[in-house]
Amino acid sequence: MFEEEIRFIRSLYGQGRVPLHEPSFFGNERKYLDECVDSTYVSSVGPFVDRFEHDVAAYTGAARAVVCVNGTSALHMALLLSGVERGDEVVTQPLTFVATCNAISYTGAVPVFVDVDADTLGLSPVKLRTWLESNADLSGGECRNRTTGRRIKACVPMHTFGHPAKVDEIASVCREFGLALVEDAAEAMGSLFHGRHAGTFAGVGALSFNGNKTITTGGGGMLLFQDADLGAYAKHVTTQARVPRGWAFVHDQVGYNYRMPNINAALGCAQLECLDAILADKRETAEAYKAFFAGRRGFSFVHEPDGARSNYWLNAVLLESREMRDAFLGETNGCGVSTRPAWELMNRLPMFGECQRGDIANALDIEARLVNLPSGVRRKEMSCVS
Amino acid sequence: MFEEEIRFIRSLYGQGRVPLHEPSFFGNERKYLDECVDSTYVSSVGPFVDRFEHDVAAYTGAARAVVCVNGTSALHMALLLSGVERGDEVVTQPLTFVATCNAISYTGAVPVFVDVDADTLGLSPVKLRTWLESNADLSGGECRNRTTGRRIKACVPMHTFGHPAKVDEIASVCREFGLALVEDAAEAMGSLFHGRHAGTFAGVGALSFNGNKTITTGGGGMLLFQDADLGAYAKHVTTQARVPRGWAFVHDQVGYNYRMPNINAALGCAQLECLDAILADKRETAEAYKAFFAGRRGFSFVHEPDGARSNYWLNAVLLESREMRDAFLGETNGCGVSTRPAWELMNRLPMFGECQRGDIANALDIEARLVNLPSGVRRKEMSCVS
Repeated sequence: MFEEEIRFIRSLYGQGRVPLHEPSFFGNERKYLDECVDSTYVSSVGPFVDRFEHDVAAYTGAARAVVCVNGTSALHMALLLSGVERGDEVVTQPLTFVATCNAISYTGAVPVFVDVDADTLGLSPVKLRTWLESNADLSGGECRNRTTGRRIKACVPMHTFGHPAKVDEIASVCREFGLALVEDAAEAMGSLFHGRHAGTFAGVGALSFNGNKTITTGGGGMLLFQDADLGAYAKHVTTQARVPRGWAFVHDQVGYNYRMPNINAALGCAQLECLDAILADKRETAEAYKAFFAGRRGFSFVHEPDGARSNYWLNAVLLESREMRDAFLGETNGCGVSTRPAWELMNRLPMFGECQRGDIANALDIEARLVNLPSGVRRKEMSCVS
Repeated sequence: MFEEEIRFIRSLYGQGRVPLHEPSFFGNERKYLDECVDSTYVSSVGPFVDRFEHDVAAYTGAARAVVCVNGTSALHMALLLSGVERGDEVVTQPLTFVATCNAISYTGAVPVFVDVDADTLGLSPVKLRTWLESNADLSGGECRNRTTGRRIKACVPMHTFGHPAKVDEIASVCREFGLALVEDAAEAMGSLFHGRHAGTFAGVGALSFNGNKTITTGGGGMLLFQDADLGAYAKHVTTQARVPRGWAFVHDQVGYNYRMPNINAALGCAQLECLDAILADKRETAEAYKAFFAGRRGFSFVHEPDGARSNYWLNAVLLESREMRDAFLGETNGCGVSTRPAWELMNRLPMFGECQRGDIANALDIEARLVNLPSGVRRKEMSCVS
């Protein structure tokens, strides 16, 4: 039934097993790893840690970037730094990876689900305003949920598959309702919204460098700050809150061991040198998918939103129905072409099933019909700037 | 004043700057890292992750070993798996690294401090029993603090500097009072107590492979289980509680991203091949220190406890007084020989200052007089079994 689609994907990725996304190493990865071993600096302190923070800040335009051990820890820390406390509520989207909601849970807060936009797949500023107007009261600068009585402290839009959400409008609603904005940019390394890098619109943004992402550190994440002082404080809290004293250290608060080891940062530095080449390759693939699916009935390619430049981390198409989606998933995966459905919506997972939610019609529709397509780098060689 | 001691340390470690402890890479570290890059398996799934778990279980005699992203996350998970909940109390020692108490805090529990033994530097079973008899009531299998009314759920001895605590006697007191035993074996990779590996006496033990430890994965930790089913459950919870469904995954509870990336596990596999050679080298150094300090007035070398075989992670001496300690720290560090005092006692840190504590005379005495000495591997070459 989907022979032509499979033939097209194989024209891009060849005849073997086609993964959904795998890392691409074309640059200084081996060299930098060897440097770590030779110098013995493999652990939480080392030149690549500092350099990776510096280079990511420079690339994204953040005032300060702070490494974390993975994207989940970066999100957890972003929420803590935004003042989220036990018993609070945090608004997010139901169409996201589970790490968004897990991180909210770690703080002792509870997620509330507001719909996504059909064009961005990210949190809808219009639906956010509608939900807040119907469900929240602002008094004394604090936003409270009328039903639960709990404080609504923060809002976490996620840049789904690397497509930027309408984060300027979301920021405006957050300001109006006194919510802290935390950007879950885990999937959005290299994505721009109106020319500005995803993750730099909020007080705190979080990136991920997991192995399935556009660039990887094995496992790793990064916090992005517009306020360098807050970034410096984050560095303190994520590195066990150490304060030098005499010939040793003391600790001035409960800190976290969210440090990224130097070997992981080494991989990150090498990958970052290749990021622009990787993005160009992925964009070509996205353009090819877009052109192909423009001519295919029953498929609608998810292209980058207006005003945005997506990293096209994972390409996606919407099919006509859940049944067609399931048939497509079965046929492609059955012949070694990896595709996958959208994540199960968060409100359907047992631990978040009781969480409050607004109208989530778009998320329901997208979850039923979306399929992610193979999206890894296709070039076998690449020259990266060192 | 300490010319002879400095001369002796330099006879072991040479004339340059002498670090306290640095990693030693003599084996397959570069080779295994290259294999990760070549295969693209650098992230949270990969053959080195499985192998490292298997090899550490085999080495320690644990029924199951589960990697974590660092020792702190392993301790946090060990406490959660032992049933520690918000509002509980957890007994531990005041002489420990801050990660022990941070992990207790993450669960929402509160530490209670019981003294260490002078001969092991680890939690004292006698002081533990004394404190429990004076402060706790057992009813319905639950142990409650008479003063605070809180449940005392667990006990976390730490094997200080790699010297095993009297974990058999501690286990016996814990059984009697209905406490879960969690072994903080972060510093004790390679240490044995009555022939059995540290971390395998409790329901759950936690190892660390931070860069300053006997062997390293850059950053990393490991959970050790006697119950393979509990180990399998830990693997589920530390890997985001994923359950396969169709062509994707769902998640059946709030999980954690405590996964160790394959590149870090690769380093661990190479290091583990060298562990016995590293331990032999460190033991020689400890014997040399022991012989030297036996003839020095005012110094008492901390040797391995009776019935134990220590990894001698960090060698330590007790000086006669805090003043003498401070003079020794100043003189050694002043000439490039790294030494350091014991950690500030946990009950003196601001976040744990209000925690209940028993008589901690030994911890106070040790903290005032102990100095850690350079303890890294001295050999420049080493043949490791592959």
